[in-house]
Amino acid sequence: MSILVLGTVALDTVKTPFGKRIHMLGGSAVHFSMSARLFTTVNLVAIVGEDFPREHIEFLKAKGIVLTSLIKEKGMTFKWEGEYQGDLNSALTLNTELGVLSTFKPEVAKQQKAIKYVFLANVDPDIQRRLLEEMREPVFVGLDSMNYWIQNKRPSLLRLLKKVNIYVANDQEARDLSGENNLLKAARRLRSFGPQMVLIKKGEHGILLYSDRFVFSLPAYPTDKVIDPTGAGDTFAGGFMGYLVKKERINEANIRKALAYGTIAASFNVEDFGVDKTSTLTMRQMEQRMAHFKKITRF
Amino acid sequence: MSILVLGTVALDTVKTPFGKRIHMLGGSAVHFSMSARLFTTVNLVAIVGEDFPREHIEFLKAKGIVLTSLIKEKGMTFKWEGEYQGDLNSALTLNTELGVLSTFKPEVAKQQKAIKYVFLANVDPDIQRRLLEEMREPVFVGLDSMNYWIQNKRPSLLRLLKKVNIYVANDQEARDLSGENNLLKAARRLRSFGPQMVLIKKGEHGILLYSDRFVFSLPAYPTDKVIDPTGAGDTFAGGFMGYLVKKERINEANIRKALAYGTIAASFNVEDFGVDKTSTLTMRQMEQRMAHFKKITRF
Repeated sequence: MSILVLGTVALDTVKTPFGKRIHMLGGSAVHFSMSARLFTTVNLVAIVGEDFPREHIEFLKAKGIVLTSLIKEKGMTFKWEGEYQGDLNSALTLNTELGVLSTFKPEVAKQQKAIKYVFLANVDPDIQRRLLEEMREPVFVGLDSMNYWIQNKRPSLLRLLKKVNIYVANDQEARDLSGENNLLKAARRLRSFGPQMVLIKKGEHGILLYSDRFVFSLPAYPTDKVIDPTGAGDTFAGGFMGYLVKKERINEANIRKALAYGTIAASFNVEDFGVDKTSTLTMRQMEQRMAHFKKITRF
Repeated sequence: MSILVLGTVALDTVKTPFGKRIHMLGGSAVHFSMSARLFTTVNLVAIVGEDFPREHIEFLKAKGIVLTSLIKEKGMTFKWEGEYQGDLNSALTLNTELGVLSTFKPEVAKQQKAIKYVFLANVDPDIQRRLLEEMREPVFVGLDSMNYWIQNKRPSLLRLLKKVNIYVANDQEARDLSGENNLLKAARRLRSFGPQMVLIKKGEHGILLYSDRFVFSLPAYPTDKVIDPTGAGDTFAGGFMGYLVKKERINEANIRKALAYGTIAASFNVEDFGVDKTSTLTMRQMEQRMAHFKKITRF
C-alpha cells in the first residue's frame, strides 16, 4: 500500500524568535511526506522551478519519497516568507512568490493512478480536483485548503468537498467556511457539505474530529521547544494518513490512533526549523513519545 | 469532609448572542459552589450588600451551601456587567461596581477554621492571604486570581503563591505572570514561584496541569450549546476540588479524575445563563457525560 500526495514543494524563508532560515526546503507536500514516510511509500506530485537545488531532490529520494511525478519547469520555485512572534501560534506572511506554481498542471505517472490513498494538500482547489479526476479508484481522500481559497475559490472548494472522505481545516478556516463560530457546529456544518469526516486543527490546542458516528478530541502533545511551527498541520496530516494506509482499514479505532500519531508527528515538527527534526525522525522516537502522550492524557 | 471557598457573590448582568440577563446571581464563590456541592459540603465566605435579594440566600441554602460566613453589610452588592461576542471565548467587561467588596474583611466562623480543603477564588490577594491565615491547618489550598491583581498586586500574589498547593490560571494570566509565551514553560515558571501544581485553563481548548511528577492535558468537553461562559473556570475549580475532597486523598490518579470532573462540570455551566444549568445538575448527569467524555478522548 502506498499514498499519493499533491501539494507544494517550496523554498521557505522563516523568521522566529529562535532564528532565521533562508530558502530552506519546505512546502505542504514535503512536510506531509516527512511523517507519512514512516508508515508507507509516499508518491509526491508537485512542481519546482529551475532554481530548485539538486541536493533537495537527492535528499527527498534518500528519504524514500517517490518523485516520478515531481515536475521541474522553466521559472522559479514557489517561495514563501513568514515570521512568527510571541506564542508562535500564527504566521505573518511577509512574501509569497508563486513562480512555477501559478501554471501548475499536475501530471500523475500511469502506474501511480491506481494508488488508493490520496492527500490533497493545500493548492488551488481546481488543481486538486484535476488531480483527483486522474486517479482511477481512490478509496480514501483527504483534503486540506487555506483561507485564500475559501475566500477566492469557494464554489470550487465546495464542489471538491463532496468528493473527499476527510476535510482538514484549522479552526479559523473551519469558522470562515462554515459561518459558525462554535467549532462543533462548524464541524457539523462542514460535514453537511460532503466529507464523511471533518478534522479541525487547533494548533497548540490539539484537534477535534467530527463524523456522524463519533466525535473525538485530543490536546496537542505539550512541548516547550517550539522553534518553527511551519508545516505542523501537514506533518500532522502525513502521520494521520500514513498510519491509516499502513493499517489498510478505515475504522473508528484506526482513525483514533491515526489522529494520535498525527499529533505526535506534529509535535516533533515544531521542535526545529523546516524538516530538520522530522527528516531524521524514527518510528522508535514516535512510539516513545506516543507512550508518554498516553500517560499525559489518561484519566 | 467539607470545603471552604472564599470568593465573590455577585449580581451579574450578561449579554451574549443568545440574550441578556440583568442582575442574576453570580460570582466566583457561587459558581464554585454549584459544582463542588455535588461532592461535598461547601462553606462559603463572601460579602453581599443590603440590596442582595433574600430569594438568592434561600436558593443557596436550599442547595446545601453553608452560609455562616456570608456577611451582609451596608452598601451595595458587587456587580459585574459583561458582554460576549463571536466565539464567546472572552468577555468584554462593560462595568464593575465593587460596592461592599471594596472593604471586605472575611470572617470565618470558629467551627469552620478547621476545614482542611480551601479554595481562594478570585478576590484581592491580600484578602485571600488574610483568610488563609485564619485557617488552622489547611491540607490542600487552591488559588485563583485575575489579570487585574497580576498587574496591580503582583508582590502580594507572589507571596501568596508560596502558600498554596495549586494555582489555577487561564492561559493569558499564566503568560502575564510568568513572562513566558509557551504554556509549558509558563507553567514550569509558575511552579517555581511556589505552588506544587499549576493548572492552566484554556477555555474551549481544555486544560494543562503541571507538577514536578507529571504533566496532564485534557481537551474541553465539546459542546455546541455555548450560551454563557461566565463562571466556567470557577465551576471547573468546584468540580476539581470537590472530587478531591470526596476522595480524601491527593494522589496522581485522583487529580487526573478530578480534572476530568472539573471539565465536565464546566461544560454544563456554559450551556445556560449564570447558574441556571449547574444549580439543577445531578451526579447522574455528570456521570453520563463523563462516560461520553471518555469515549471522545480514548485512543
